Amino acid sequence: MDKKSQNDIIDRRDFFKKTAALAGTAIAGSSILASNAMANEHAGGNGEKAILETPEWATKWGDPITKNLYGMPSKYEHNVTRRYTKLLASGNFRASIAVTPIQESMGIITPNGLFFSRSHGGVAHIDPNEHRLMITGLVEKPLVLTMEELKRYPSVTRTHFIECPANGGQEWRGPQYNSLQFSKGFMSCAEWTGVYIKDILKDLGIKPEAQWMLAEGGDSSKMGRTIPMEKVLDDAMIVWGQNGEALRPEQGYPIRLLVPGWEGNLCVKWLRRLDFATEPWYCKEETSKYSILKPSGKIAQHFYANEVNSTVTSPSPEIDWSNVKEGDVVEIEGLAWSGMGTITGVDISFDGGKNYVEAQLKGLVLPKCWTRWSYMYTIPKDFKHTDGNQLLLTSRASDDAGYIQPTVDQELTAVGVEAVYHRNAVETWRVEADGKISHVQLRSEYTRDKDGNVIIEKGEA
Amino acid sequence: MDKKSQNDIIDRRDFFKKTAALAGTAIAGSSILASNAMANEHAGGNGEKAILETPEWATKWGDPITKNLYGMPSKYEHNVTRRYTKLLASGNFRASIAVTPIQESMGIITPNGLFFSRSHGGVAHIDPNEHRLMITGLVEKPLVLTMEELKRYPSVTRTHFIECPANGGQEWRGPQYNSLQFSKGFMSCAEWTGVYIKDILKDLGIKPEAQWMLAEGGDSSKMGRTIPMEKVLDDAMIVWGQNGEALRPEQGYPIRLLVPGWEGNLCVKWLRRLDFATEPWYCKEETSKYSILKPSGKIAQHFYANEVNSTVTSPSPEIDWSNVKEGDVVEIEGLAWSGMGTITGVDISFDGGKNYVEAQLKGLVLPKCWTRWSYMYTIPKDFKHTDGNQLLLTSRASDDAGYIQPTVDQELTAVGVEAVYHRNAVETWRVEADGKISHVQLRSEYTRDKDGNVIIEKGEA
Repeated sequence: MDKKSQNDIIDRRDFFKKTAALAGTAIAGSSILASNAMANEHAGGNGEKAILETPEWATKWGDPITKNLYGMPSKYEHNVTRRYTKLLASGNFRASIAVTPIQESMGIITPNGLFFSRSHGGVAHIDPNEHRLMITGLVEKPLVLTMEELKRYPSVTRTHFIECPANGGQEWRGPQYNSLQFSKGFMSCAEWTGVYIKDILKDLGIKPEAQWMLAEGGDSSKMGRTIPMEKVLDDAMIVWGQNGEALRPEQGYPIRLLVPGWEGNLCVKWLRRLDFATEPWYCKEETSKYSILKPSGKIAQHFYANEVNSTVTSPSPEIDWSNVKEGDVVEIEGLAWSGMGTITGVDISFDGGKNYVEAQLKGLVLPKCWTRWSYMYTIPKDFKHTDGNQLLLTSRASDDAGYIQPTVDQELTAVGVEAVYHRNAVETWRVEADGKISHVQLRSEYTRDKDGNVIIEKGEA
Repeated sequence: MDKKSQNDIIDRRDFFKKTAALAGTAIAGSSILASNAMANEHAGGNGEKAILETPEWATKWGDPITKNLYGMPSKYEHNVTRRYTKLLASGNFRASIAVTPIQESMGIITPNGLFFSRSHGGVAHIDPNEHRLMITGLVEKPLVLTMEELKRYPSVTRTHFIECPANGGQEWRGPQYNSLQFSKGFMSCAEWTGVYIKDILKDLGIKPEAQWMLAEGGDSSKMGRTIPMEKVLDDAMIVWGQNGEALRPEQGYPIRLLVPGWEGNLCVKWLRRLDFATEPWYCKEETSKYSILKPSGKIAQHFYANEVNSTVTSPSPEIDWSNVKEGDVVEIEGLAWSGMGTITGVDISFDGGKNYVEAQLKGLVLPKCWTRWSYMYTIPKDFKHTDGNQLLLTSRASDDAGYIQPTVDQELTAVGVEAVYHRNAVETWRVEADGKISHVQLRSEYTRDKDGNVIIEKGEA
């Protein structure tokens, strides 16, 4: 039933009936229990311990409001943090990455404490009163700005994701981590406040021969990246605000570049300089890194936009599905995003991509922004899909630039196996009857020709 | 020039010229400086110390990514926190409030660490594995739900403000605090994730005679509030997610009620029970508190929605405007919100409300949500407005329910002087030539008749 929504088939009443059947402790004499619970919490004798016995937290004062003037999450959420591995760090935890627990994400905002963090020289702690932004090169009026002066420009607020182009790339030869956080957590999404660079350039005057902009960081790595003027004059921003407060140090406090939808490494942190020129700079971090190794052994450069992509966040390997049983109606949820525009649709497959049905987009649908999607699904017998195969969950997004996620085979054929960047093939979770969820890669056998190109040998995946 | 936009009069190029004139350090030999700065940061001799001398943070490794797996703001932002006063606490910092620094807000999201916090028995720390939600009374199938069971319902994500109905109310006799945070910071705005109560009731079956819902907290105060079914079945939610992560303890972890646009105290935290009945409960916190004292000495009840309101966040008393000079073009910014719907427009006055011009709404404009607005303004000679009066900044919002903010005189006449709740008259900042900004109340002299009603004596404010 390709592209036909199963949401039309599952009756919504039916869902609720099933939820009721599985859920909760039914209360027999409910009105009695209710008044007991309100009037005398120590009544007991009903078996619903947590309600009738007064829990410890209801018997004493809580914390005063003076205690946490800048708050933190509950101690019971201690497991929801950014994470790192030695494998990703190459032994250096300063030039490394800490990834976002997107399996726990809700809505489209990533809280600042969980926003993924990548640096090339560690997290700098910059004094905003000492920091300056220098704007030089092919501008009529080069300037050095204090942070106060920069913030005089008219501000703009936009919600965009930032994604490392290596997101998912470590997995391309086959899953390395049975983890959504480590396979796709190299991204986050936030509400950003700052100024469009095009508005600054209206002020300074850009010379017509300027074709490229260098952004340079003020940290020890002097991260440098070059951006074509067409993008600079479209929607590139200098931002100082994230989710309603100042950028965090690990996000480039006091200012960073934001290049909506494009590779995260272009969003240079601890920004101290913009320079304008006729040619790209070919900095270290846009030649030795963040370039794409082709089957021929040559390097492709000037790939910028993160292509249309999606993932199933629930269920996913870190989510406990041990209580989910055959016949349950569950909400399958995920994220979709495109650096080229707005998500137009997400399809979901239960057989690893042979057949797709349409999922629903939920909440705000904004350009170059996470978009949440959902599908109500009845768990089949023995967790096997209707055609007898195991349950294989795959999502596939499309965007208003006209793109749709490729299969793994399509991507292998088009891009080869060397490049770790910009891989956006569909991703699959295998769900077993005990609730175990595994990352599997569905691809055909392949060989390579004399030029290194991938030749698919057999299979239909 | 009432209602005529001055944005049409200030030429945008002109703005940028003026910014350029005041801003930054112009660089004479810019290309030389640029290459110097890149090639040899120790060159010096230019006078632009912060650029040419390598700052300390650029000379050493920053923090490893392993250091803050759940991050915090920069140490330089230590002053941006929630705040409290003894005056608001009545000597008890558990039954008190900590208010949001909305003068520092950006966009429409308040980060969770700064979201205002009000409790009646202190902040409870609840174990979600032990916590239960009991749903009782006039439902067909009363239930007790674990948190896992509750989260099986289809989730929804919405961005809404929460506002204490006392927001601004302490100021009604005249400004007590020369502070935006203390006068209007009893509110914040976030992206919430949870379930519509109407969806749970489809499951449980609501009896037709049910007219009111009680929400009861599981903390030591047993905060209880009653909500009419019409609102419950419209958009009331049980939420567990805030800005993409679990609720913080001070926001009711693991679950709270969200009653979009209505009094914040209805959004019962640490929610443990919903009960349905034919009559309101008249709990302590909806009789002794959160009711409205009328001039007659009687109490009005069943006021729920926060009326249309607005404030100027920049400039405001806490914002440093000492560097702002006559002739500068500045962005005046603020927030508008309505618990009855969507903001349709904001007007701004420079003479305390005699004349208004239209401001621009910025970014997302959503129902029952903060809406940010902006106006580009040229600072007049001696900070006096064109008609020779002092500069008095007043904003006035309107909503799609057809309401517009009243003047202080209109509000005094309509509501009297006793009630501290639901005051939404326009607010005024006086701006002086040294950049000093003060909260002033523009109202006429009044007397009161034998029934306590306010009679405006003179004036035109």
